[in-house]
Amino acid sequence: MSIVIKGGTIVTALDKYKADIRIDGEKIVAIGDDLERDGDEIISAKGCYILPGGVDPHTHFDLDFETYSTADDFESGTKAALAGGTTTIIDFATQDKGKTLNQGLDKWNRKSKGKTYCDYGFHMAISDWNNSVSGEIEDMVNKGITSFKIYMTYKNILQMNDGDIYKALKRSKELGVLIAFHCENGDLIDSLIDEAKSQGKKSPKYHPLTKPIEVEKEAITRLLQIAEMANAPVYIVHLSTRKGLEEVIKAKLRGAEVYVESCPQYLILDDSHYELEGFEGAKYVLSPPLRNKENLDGLWRGLKLNEIDTIGTDHCSFNFRGQKELGIDDFSKIPNGIPGVEHRISLLYTYGVKTGKIDINKLVQLTSTNPAKIFGLYPKKGNIAVGSDGDLVIWDFNKSSVITAKNQFHNVDYTPYEGYEIHGEIQHVLLRGNRVFSRGKIIGDVQKGKFIKRVKLGGVNSNV
Amino acid sequence: MSIVIKGGTIVTALDKYKADIRIDGEKIVAIGDDLERDGDEIISAKGCYILPGGVDPHTHFDLDFETYSTADDFESGTKAALAGGTTTIIDFATQDKGKTLNQGLDKWNRKSKGKTYCDYGFHMAISDWNNSVSGEIEDMVNKGITSFKIYMTYKNILQMNDGDIYKALKRSKELGVLIAFHCENGDLIDSLIDEAKSQGKKSPKYHPLTKPIEVEKEAITRLLQIAEMANAPVYIVHLSTRKGLEEVIKAKLRGAEVYVESCPQYLILDDSHYELEGFEGAKYVLSPPLRNKENLDGLWRGLKLNEIDTIGTDHCSFNFRGQKELGIDDFSKIPNGIPGVEHRISLLYTYGVKTGKIDINKLVQLTSTNPAKIFGLYPKKGNIAVGSDGDLVIWDFNKSSVITAKNQFHNVDYTPYEGYEIHGEIQHVLLRGNRVFSRGKIIGDVQKGKFIKRVKLGGVNSNV
Amino acid sequence: MSIVIKGGTIVTALDKYKADIRIDGEKIVAIGDDLERDGDEIISAKGCYILPGGVDPHTHFDLDFETYSTADDFESGTKAALAGGTTTIIDFATQDKGKTLNQGLDKWNRKSKGKTYCDYGFHMAISDWNNSVSGEIEDMVNKGITSFKIYMTYKNILQMNDGDIYKALKRSKELGVLIAFHCENGDLIDSLIDEAKSQGKKSPKYHPLTKPIEVEKEAITRLLQIAEMANAPVYIVHLSTRKGLEEVIKAKLRGAEVYVESCPQYLILDDSHYELEGFEGAKYVLSPPLRNKENLDGLWRGLKLNEIDTIGTDHCSFNFRGQKELGIDDFSKIPNGIPGVEHRISLLYTYGVKTGKIDINKLVQLTSTNPAKIFGLYPKKGNIAVGSDGDLVIWDFNKSSVITAKNQFHNVDYTPYEGYEIHGEIQHVLLRGNRVFSRGKIIGDVQKGKFIKRVKLGGVNSNV
Amino acid sequence: MSIVIKGGTIVTALDKYKADIRIDGEKIVAIGDDLERDGDEIISAKGCYILPGGVDPHTHFDLDFETYSTADDFESGTKAALAGGTTTIIDFATQDKGKTLNQGLDKWNRKSKGKTYCDYGFHMAISDWNNSVSGEIEDMVNKGITSFKIYMTYKNILQMNDGDIYKALKRSKELGVLIAFHCENGDLIDSLIDEAKSQGKKSPKYHPLTKPIEVEKEAITRLLQIAEMANAPVYIVHLSTRKGLEEVIKAKLRGAEVYVESCPQYLILDDSHYELEGFEGAKYVLSPPLRNKENLDGLWRGLKLNEIDTIGTDHCSFNFRGQKELGIDDFSKIPNGIPGVEHRISLLYTYGVKTGKIDINKLVQLTSTNPAKIFGLYPKKGNIAVGSDGDLVIWDFNKSSVITAKNQFHNVDYTPYEGYEIHGEIQHVLLRGNRVFSRGKIIGDVQKGKFIKRVKLGGVNSNV
Repeated sequence: MSIVIKGGTIVTALDKYKADIRIDGEKIVAIGDDLERDGDEIISAKGCYILPGGVDPHTHFDLDFETYSTADDFESGTKAALAGGTTTIIDFATQDKGKTLNQGLDKWNRKSKGKTYCDYGFHMAISDWNNSVSGEIEDMVNKGITSFKIYMTYKNILQMNDGDIYKALKRSKELGVLIAFHCENGDLIDSLIDEAKSQGKKSPKYHPLTKPIEVEKEAITRLLQIAEMANAPVYIVHLSTRKGLEEVIKAKLRGAEVYVESCPQYLILDDSHYELEGFEGAKYVLSPPLRNKENLDGLWRGLKLNEIDTIGTDHCSFNFRGQKELGIDDFSKIPNGIPGVEHRISLLYTYGVKTGKIDINKLVQLTSTNPAKIFGLYPKKGNIAVGSDGDLVIWDFNKSSVITAKNQFHNVDYTPYEGYEIHGEIQHVLLRGNRVFSRGKIIGDVQKGKFIKRVKLGGVNSNV
Repeated sequence: MSIVIKGGTIVTALDKYKADIRIDGEKIVAIGDDLERDGDEIISAKGCYILPGGVDPHTHFDLDFETYSTADDFESGTKAALAGGTTTIIDFATQDKGKTLNQGLDKWNRKSKGKTYCDYGFHMAISDWNNSVSGEIEDMVNKGITSFKIYMTYKNILQMNDGDIYKALKRSKELGVLIAFHCENGDLIDSLIDEAKSQGKKSPKYHPLTKPIEVEKEAITRLLQIAEMANAPVYIVHLSTRKGLEEVIKAKLRGAEVYVESCPQYLILDDSHYELEGFEGAKYVLSPPLRNKENLDGLWRGLKLNEIDTIGTDHCSFNFRGQKELGIDDFSKIPNGIPGVEHRISLLYTYGVKTGKIDINKLVQLTSTNPAKIFGLYPKKGNIAVGSDGDLVIWDFNKSSVITAKNQFHNVDYTPYEGYEIHGEIQHVLLRGNRVFSRGKIIGDVQKGKFIKRVKLGGVNSNV
Repeated sequence: MSIVIKGGTIVTALDKYKADIRIDGEKIVAIGDDLERDGDEIISAKGCYILPGGVDPHTHFDLDFETYSTADDFESGTKAALAGGTTTIIDFATQDKGKTLNQGLDKWNRKSKGKTYCDYGFHMAISDWNNSVSGEIEDMVNKGITSFKIYMTYKNILQMNDGDIYKALKRSKELGVLIAFHCENGDLIDSLIDEAKSQGKKSPKYHPLTKPIEVEKEAITRLLQIAEMANAPVYIVHLSTRKGLEEVIKAKLRGAEVYVESCPQYLILDDSHYELEGFEGAKYVLSPPLRNKENLDGLWRGLKLNEIDTIGTDHCSFNFRGQKELGIDDFSKIPNGIPGVEHRISLLYTYGVKTGKIDINKLVQLTSTNPAKIFGLYPKKGNIAVGSDGDLVIWDFNKSSVITAKNQFHNVDYTPYEGYEIHGEIQHVLLRGNRVFSRGKIIGDVQKGKFIKRVKLGGVNSNV
Repeated sequence: MSIVIKGGTIVTALDKYKADIRIDGEKIVAIGDDLERDGDEIISAKGCYILPGGVDPHTHFDLDFETYSTADDFESGTKAALAGGTTTIIDFATQDKGKTLNQGLDKWNRKSKGKTYCDYGFHMAISDWNNSVSGEIEDMVNKGITSFKIYMTYKNILQMNDGDIYKALKRSKELGVLIAFHCENGDLIDSLIDEAKSQGKKSPKYHPLTKPIEVEKEAITRLLQIAEMANAPVYIVHLSTRKGLEEVIKAKLRGAEVYVESCPQYLILDDSHYELEGFEGAKYVLSPPLRNKENLDGLWRGLKLNEIDTIGTDHCSFNFRGQKELGIDDFSKIPNGIPGVEHRISLLYTYGVKTGKIDINKLVQLTSTNPAKIFGLYPKKGNIAVGSDGDLVIWDFNKSSVITAKNQFHNVDYTPYEGYEIHGEIQHVLLRGNRVFSRGKIIGDVQKGKFIKRVKLGGVNSNV
């Protein structure tokens, strides 16, 4: 039996046109007029846009710290993903200091196994560099993990020094894999926090002041210099600053291969939130912090000019009660992160496409096609074309609603977007040809989500 | 009756996948597996790539000067286009000094009428700016001519001064149309030519020395400044220099909307050709001139980084005997221009895709999708998708050949690519569902080519 | 008989120290402690600074237009110069279109002869370029005129096109002379004025809007490109914009030799003056116009960073009554220019040195040493050293006053600095060892002022 | 009794003129014609230039490592300084890890006491940052040490991390003192050395390859970012790269206060020396390493454009036999450094002034005036003016000689300039009015050299 989706407008990174879609099993087999045959299941998409399922390249589900974990685990996190039109997420498995990459991967397999509602993969975060880890990289590739992550901040926990970054990049070049970087200068941040606290500055509004634009810009500049020396491509996660973007552009003109991710929060939420009364600002404590309007504008322009390649969420949720409150007397103890996997696409639609900043093809490119291409999921994921997985989202963009913590699929007690209007109501989500979400409800069970072994990346040379 | 193209690999600006294509009348109606039905005409594309028909945004057919005209007219020119996989060309109708735009258009209608084998449109080149011309712009738009051209060189003939350029751009902004610019500083060129000739430097090798990189860079910088003042988009034709490109990138970062075209000759042929013996260098006299390897490399990088949007040909052919020879004693009298419409796609494939500089999706984007988008032909032209025109080229890229003047469809007595190997043999070309070229032969007659009324442009915000 | 100046603090571009100065005839012969001998004339400089006489490289005295002339001629202008501590001025002799340079020089000799109270020289402004003018350049050099001027604005009157600028620069390089440039794009200005007037915008506040930052920046960028092609040094007069300065710096880094002049008005007066009630804004109509605070700050930084070499005045005065009023119904008819030769040094002291933006050595450098070096007057002029001319100004910087039109030496009916406080009261001015001004009064007669034949320039490589 | 120097040409950062100089005691009391009186000691300077005594802001005398010390101590080092026209040196006292600044200073006082032939001061190098060291800074200032040094390389020995650099700069800003930085990224260097050695690359030619341009540029970029955050001035020692200089210029345009030093070796010696046969390249092992011609040219241009403020030597000598040879099997064990204090001025004269790259005023500025100004010695040192110390060098620049190890005052067994011609023979050196060197011989004894308590710096705002 086949499914035919009728009457919708197909939107890809390139096109927008009316046609039906026919799915056999897990794959799209035809696109055209009048594809219906006897016995087909028909899904009407009349008046709707059909987008390829979203790919979120940056989530942190069930991330554990010494005494607490993130509010969302793989179950609530991936349900929220589907509810937001994202059918594939890539989470960060993490090596603990002194342990192996394989031990990190095992831990993340345990966290995700049997709990995951959408398709998924892992990046592997490396916290120690040594010969043994260098050897394990190849192992990871064989297991379908073809991208890695290094932190330039979080001193003594995750931060890697420049010498080890160089070595890791030389190795990544050798194997043709990609390393993603969190670019902030951790040494400077620690001194700035010391300085602030020594002056009695301990409320949430000092969070952004101790992680200023300069610490991101500096880390990006330095990383790009090291990457040029190692002749290796890099991926910059959650870019938040215009100046950081300018450094990227300069490096590309010198010949560097750099991919850039930003997040809805850096495009839509500005740093005025840190001025909120009482401890409310803690809801916006994340790293890098929110920035001012000049930066927001700069990032929107970056999207338009193809200088930013992907929009991820960096979903990393903590409850306000009990978790964010750990830092009530000291902003530096507030767990860093916000939820977002559920609202990525509708926020980008509402605040980007509706306002004319980008067009809807660009939205698809940023939230689906490019993440799929860069991270070795394409053309299986990221497109609506014959042969691709039947991962489809049927949106009615005429409908709108308002974000509230109460109604979200995220398992967290607040949302940074409380009261924000969003356009776009999902009618149906198909995952590999299966309807997994319809009109506000998850359908079926967790076995639907599959770990996707990713291939080595091809880049986005073709520019979509 | 419908046509089904079977067994090929469809290549668009975004995708590469195997599927059949079904055409009813002039349009694509389905893409998928097993689309064949009884009574269909079947075209086999086995082992071949199917690309959307090429769109060449820059040709000069039947361009007349006081005492001579270009070697190719609309008949030979558009036959050559089809033979090279290009199904739509946009030529430059030109206002003569002191005459109206409508007079210019009438002239070009006469030149093209009943002689054109592929679909076509016109840009309108403006040589005089005044209130009456300003009024005629709207007229042109109504006639389907939504793009214009201004020259910053060819003093006393076509060159427009900065003040008039500003006025023209303000007007273009008002009407939502696009102006294309030939960016070279004509005043400086004339002084450099005077200087060279006063020193007895009269052979073809002095052509590039009197049109150095600086005169292009300067004109681009100046144009972009004026465009920012007028807040109008611009299109730069035949970019030849890395420095010019850097100016474009800086302007885009400041918020300018700029589209850039380059040509195969600026990517593949370098300025060593001016050192050829005798008068052979005259075969490479065009404006701007060929550049050195550093510039070629910079332009290839520009393609990869999405900083160059289109590849046109600036096809403007003159016979070596009798025409180029007019300048045998004075390089400044050599007619400027070279042929190229026939070899655009295969040259870009051979020297770009085969060498790994760009991928084949990028090739489609540059030679078809982007010109169609920028110049108001999309999605009718420029893509393989349900609803688009059945303009298709079936290429066998396993086959190769060698360019020689003798075998070309161009009606000119030499080729600047004599002896160059090219990969890609065309099996069939379809124009709006009609087979118009097969295995080396034009099929049918001139009535196939239609003037396309273009709509106002949408730009390439979606980046493909 | 000798003069000994006792008890003062000598200030040069380099030093500040207490010592006496001994002058024999026209020259300084010793600097040291206890230089007094029997029979010397003693001038006390107790509590005062002694600065080298100012050199103003940019004045327009007795400049004639069709129906009127500037308010100041060589008599009132050079008296005002002395009263402001300036002992040498360089005015602009100007070639009329269609006439020769020698005819221009003759005219300026007539204007200045027997009327000049301080030492002086001429730059020669060229309005027509042709072979005969090219030949006359050498003639000028022999007559002690080693610097020239070209306008990039004032279309149809003085504006020179890019091709002629190139030829002039090649010639200047050949002869080792320097050309000064007024950098504004005259074609754009004319279109902007047309546009404004067609919209009924005719009051003085539209003056700056039709000569925006971009027209200066563009002209500078273009000039520097041409200068690089000609490999010739250039001098930019009356720089008013930060962006223009950035272009200069980039060009210097590429190897260009560029000298930059700014004026007190561009450092001290901002564009809020154009918002004055009624026709008052006309008092500030000059070209380029006044700019906003960001530009003022940028120019002050340029002084500090040695990127601006000289401070001239562009003194070009018109009476408000009867002259500025010519444009009462049309800002484009207001004569362009303001007075200033009298207040250059005290304004720079008050608003630069007193505020800590520059130190007093820098003031001497900008107003005396550098103009002398660049224009071939050094070490005769521009310094206090053994062997230099006895051009000295004894300032009491503890005293202050307020600028008013009524009290000025300028022969013009207003001052743009009405009510501005200035620090620095001149006790005495010596010109080649002669006391020519003391406590508010000109001493002696016009024969004191001598035409100085200038040598070719040595530049400011030594950086002072 | 007074000294009168007769018949010479005085050269300062600003001037060049003939005059006599009269010294009473330690100070200059008059400059002028005919200053001689009965009883004066007359020194003839006929045919000679008289320059202010040189100030070398960067020497390492008697620097001790675990098992060896530099070849030159304060005795041989300061004799060589005088022999080269340098009358004041500033050496680097160094804090040992875990010890106090005062302990470091005591050590350097012991090294220098009673052994120093010219005047001298100390910078204090900080290797550990903590609250106690922060407190000691003020102590140092009171002892006349107003400048400090931090290393960004030499990991685990001297390298300071970014967080501590920030803290140190905040403190320096508070106290108005200046920190000098050795800008190379030590982490990257260590990884590059590991990489080279793991590939068996152990000869001297791998020294520069493991300290490439990028590690200097990166460190400079990072430092300037931190300095901007701390709003503190910085001084960059021994700049070796054009790209590093470009970063400085960009930072200055953003408002940073940055002083730059380079050394004769980075202007005159290129990296071809690493290709010398056998172990000869070890003679040129210093950090940063020598660079190629493009960088040499860039630094010369930096001198001319006032972007480089001082020329020091980084004199740090090791014998080839027994010391450089420690690294015969492993380039990373070769002691880093070369001699140079003796030849600084004559090399700069010969390869800069004689070749027309700079003028002689610029030479004085770089080697005497600017170091004196920046490091709080001016106007006592660094100038020839009434009231300044009688530190004078009488040069005969018509005479030339050839550098050989055998004839040098340096106490080291080779010279990197073996066989280099130099122009300029010193006739006499006066230190505070005392003749201390004449025609090739040191006169008198060590007591002549005095420790100079330096004041806080005033910068070089006045640009000389």
